Amino acid sequence: MKFSQLMVELKIPLTQTSLTRPGAVDPELKGVAAIDCATANTLSFIEGKRYRSWITTTHASALILPEDPGFLAAATARNLAWVATPQPRWQFAQALQQFYQPWCPSPGIHPTAILEPTVQLGQGVSIGAHVIIHGPTVVGDQVCIHANSVIYPGVVLGDRTLLHANCVIHERTEIGQDCVIHSGAVLGAEGFGFVRTAEGWHKMPQSGRTVLEDQVEVGCNTCIDRPAVGETRIGRGTKIDNLVQVGHGCQIHSHCALAGQVGLAGRVTLESGVILAGQVGVADQVTVGAGALATARAGITQNIGEGEVVSGFPAMPSRLWLKATAILRRLPHRHHASQNSPMNARVSSNRGISK
Amino acid sequence: MKFSQLMVELKIPLTQTSLTRPGAVDPELKGVAAIDCATANTLSFIEGKRYRSWITTTHASALILPEDPGFLAAATARNLAWVATPQPRWQFAQALQQFYQPWCPSPGIHPTAILEPTVQLGQGVSIGAHVIIHGPTVVGDQVCIHANSVIYPGVVLGDRTLLHANCVIHERTEIGQDCVIHSGAVLGAEGFGFVRTAEGWHKMPQSGRTVLEDQVEVGCNTCIDRPAVGETRIGRGTKIDNLVQVGHGCQIHSHCALAGQVGLAGRVTLESGVILAGQVGVADQVTVGAGALATARAGITQNIGEGEVVSGFPAMPSRLWLKATAILRRLPHRHHASQNSPMNARVSSNRGISK
Amino acid sequence: MKFSQLMVELKIPLTQTSLTRPGAVDPELKGVAAIDCATANTLSFIEGKRYRSWITTTHASALILPEDPGFLAAATARNLAWVATPQPRWQFAQALQQFYQPWCPSPGIHPTAILEPTVQLGQGVSIGAHVIIHGPTVVGDQVCIHANSVIYPGVVLGDRTLLHANCVIHERTEIGQDCVIHSGAVLGAEGFGFVRTAEGWHKMPQSGRTVLEDQVEVGCNTCIDRPAVGETRIGRGTKIDNLVQVGHGCQIHSHCALAGQVGLAGRVTLESGVILAGQVGVADQVTVGAGALATARAGITQNIGEGEVVSGFPAMPSRLWLKATAILRRLPHRHHASQNSPMNARVSSNRGISK
Repeated sequence: MKFSQLMVELKIPLTQTSLTRPGAVDPELKGVAAIDCATANTLSFIEGKRYRSWITTTHASALILPEDPGFLAAATARNLAWVATPQPRWQFAQALQQFYQPWCPSPGIHPTAILEPTVQLGQGVSIGAHVIIHGPTVVGDQVCIHANSVIYPGVVLGDRTLLHANCVIHERTEIGQDCVIHSGAVLGAEGFGFVRTAEGWHKMPQSGRTVLEDQVEVGCNTCIDRPAVGETRIGRGTKIDNLVQVGHGCQIHSHCALAGQVGLAGRVTLESGVILAGQVGVADQVTVGAGALATARAGITQNIGEGEVVSGFPAMPSRLWLKATAILRRLPHRHHASQNSPMNARVSSNRGISK
Repeated sequence: MKFSQLMVELKIPLTQTSLTRPGAVDPELKGVAAIDCATANTLSFIEGKRYRSWITTTHASALILPEDPGFLAAATARNLAWVATPQPRWQFAQALQQFYQPWCPSPGIHPTAILEPTVQLGQGVSIGAHVIIHGPTVVGDQVCIHANSVIYPGVVLGDRTLLHANCVIHERTEIGQDCVIHSGAVLGAEGFGFVRTAEGWHKMPQSGRTVLEDQVEVGCNTCIDRPAVGETRIGRGTKIDNLVQVGHGCQIHSHCALAGQVGLAGRVTLESGVILAGQVGVADQVTVGAGALATARAGITQNIGEGEVVSGFPAMPSRLWLKATAILRRLPHRHHASQNSPMNARVSSNRGISK
Repeated sequence: MKFSQLMVELKIPLTQTSLTRPGAVDPELKGVAAIDCATANTLSFIEGKRYRSWITTTHASALILPEDPGFLAAATARNLAWVATPQPRWQFAQALQQFYQPWCPSPGIHPTAILEPTVQLGQGVSIGAHVIIHGPTVVGDQVCIHANSVIYPGVVLGDRTLLHANCVIHERTEIGQDCVIHSGAVLGAEGFGFVRTAEGWHKMPQSGRTVLEDQVEVGCNTCIDRPAVGETRIGRGTKIDNLVQVGHGCQIHSHCALAGQVGLAGRVTLESGVILAGQVGVADQVTVGAGALATARAGITQNIGEGEVVSGFPAMPSRLWLKATAILRRLPHRHHASQNSPMNARVSSNRGISK
């Protein structure tokens, strides 16, 4: 596809592009690529300063750039095609959709799928080989369930929701519209609830249910448990990565993002827009305020206020953590420099910085 | 069910309840709920001070309470039905069983299940769709295997053991009676054993086996590996949560509890009654003494004595860790307050406490 | 098998063994065992000083020992059969293969497996029950796919590659020769890529692919994602343990080893021979130099040079971390000993060491 045609498809006025310039090129685009891996006839993007210098060396033929005159001038100097936009990454995502459509099986029910008589099916569903759906279960329109997934009774799957292969959806789980559940995820299994008695651990029955609102995405092999009573709830538009543990009774509000290997203990509340980076843990019954951000590996043991940015374990404000860990790294030098009087600040001006 | 009838079902003498009081109510109970979510005609429970104030505001109609006169008086003041017990949580678990029975498929072997001729089947088994059982394998009485689970040869499944969907049980795994294996768990796979050679990593054959004693519970997508030689063993009554890694040759004794995302390296020993909270890690060949407790995210690198309570990484006594991390948080303030003489204690009385 | 016969099978000259000594025994070996669990008529091994004392107490009848005269003399004193070798662990692995062959199903395609017409099959393949292979896909010679695995379209499986049960291999994944993918692993699923917009998280299409070179091993329930553009690549001979997360676009070079629950964010580069111990995390776009080693639970947030050994979070040189954490443990004692002048080194000589 010509660059100019792509602009038409994306509904971008030519005035935002290099095409109005005299002598502008209009390259044929064969695909998209990351800026540092791009080859001729590919489209790429740059969104911030980190990759700015790549404009002068990339092999890409066209670039999506921020509305920064310096960036545009550099691209123009190399006679590259470009489009300027306040959101280069978002625009790149749009462009990608012109070149790539994810694989989706055709509608229809594979003859080896097993649907119990009380399963209620919508229009245009696609159900893969060896899928088992216990009833009563409601399957919405255009739902797609990949091979070997298992659905326990009492489940609701909203319209256009997609389940990848080998998922397990346990009893009384309700999944909204336009959700994506990746391969191997397990939703609605029994929470880890036991009562300690003299004879050992006594199982607390897990009678609750699990609710995913619309547009939720759940990563591969991620587990979301149901509680003893009440519900575990994942809010609209929340995205969860691979190998995440969501304990029984958690309340995750809308538009949160949980990166890989995050773990939430029981009854955690994440208010709207919370972002937890990789391997973050949250202790039971803790509330994380709206818009808060925990950097990778933070361990949150107490409530976090709205919009706070926390790091470390126990989690503290990120700026404080950066300072505290920087000092921690220097302690051995201080200690060494003052063997007879460890921790004595008088000699600390002689210390080195560990590398 | 009336509250009074529930007391009869649970074999609780009326003298332990509010029912002997003049004017006592006997509400109709329609279900159970957490104290902060309870609605009219539900039963709830309170076990400690943390939720005590909810007695005055909960919408529950009946409460399971500790034997504390203050709690009972508060409930009586609102004319709620109550029962007093030394173990409210345990009693609540018993009550829950009156209102909820987990779903279980009927006995029988689904026609799409594949059992090799050398599989030896007990009485009253339930085997779901597309289950594969390689032989020789012994399946005990009343065993229930949900859809799409795979059993390699040489496995033993004790009576009444339950396997949820999409589990994989590898060769030479022996599972005792009354165990529950949750969806996606993988038991008895090859341990991660390689020998480093000039040509790269050389596989150490993993000829050992995996043993789960009676009443063991294994969480969703948890992995328990077999060793090169000998066995990996999980003791009677031990409960393991989701996404836990148990390395090759671990010896976990009876009645331990391992929360979500715990990781045990190879040949770890957990003596009886050890509790590991979420995301705890234990280094290879370490022994954790009976009754020891590791708080969330502790990283245990050395042997831990009986009954110790440890935290942090490297794990240290929890009280010490609380103090050490509290000091760590304050270091930047000290540092800042004494720029010309960092770490000088003389100025530390002026420091603030970070929030 | 006699010990002497085993030496013949392993092509070990008798001069490296105890057999040339007058009165040497030649025990019948019935199996192999760890040194501390060995019983009569088993073979075991010792590779370092840690287990040296077991030579005088083990019940093993034959030992693989390092070429250390003290070790050999101790074994001779007990009239045990022994073989001396520079690499006892490697030799033990060789010996194990004489006693143990992993179970492998016979070649052939199970009648319940579903192969789409465009699947191209090699010679001698073994395809288990309920496997689904979407086409076009290329399956090499002697490939073995265990029950219930699912293969999306556009996959290549190299000769002799083994997939255990319930794996999912997503579209456009290429797996080399002699790879082993353990049960429940998910390869090539969509990376966790979203663009934040005013309406919420907008999905970045994941059009890239996933490549595993030859002799790669992937653990149970491990997830390796594909990127938006370009590829995620795992180098020749790299071994990955259970429950590991490899984010979109990572480049792992040859002969690396990643232990259980390691997490790599997006676009991480691990150069050749990197070793990451259990629960290590690496932040996005970080490069870890060839031969570097991260000890358990290290959190790598910045580039690491070749051959560095790092620990802690944020990761620092291991020696520095050991010192820093040792000091951290002592801070409360200092603090306590100097309440009126906390951190004052003058009183630190009185401090105790916490146990």
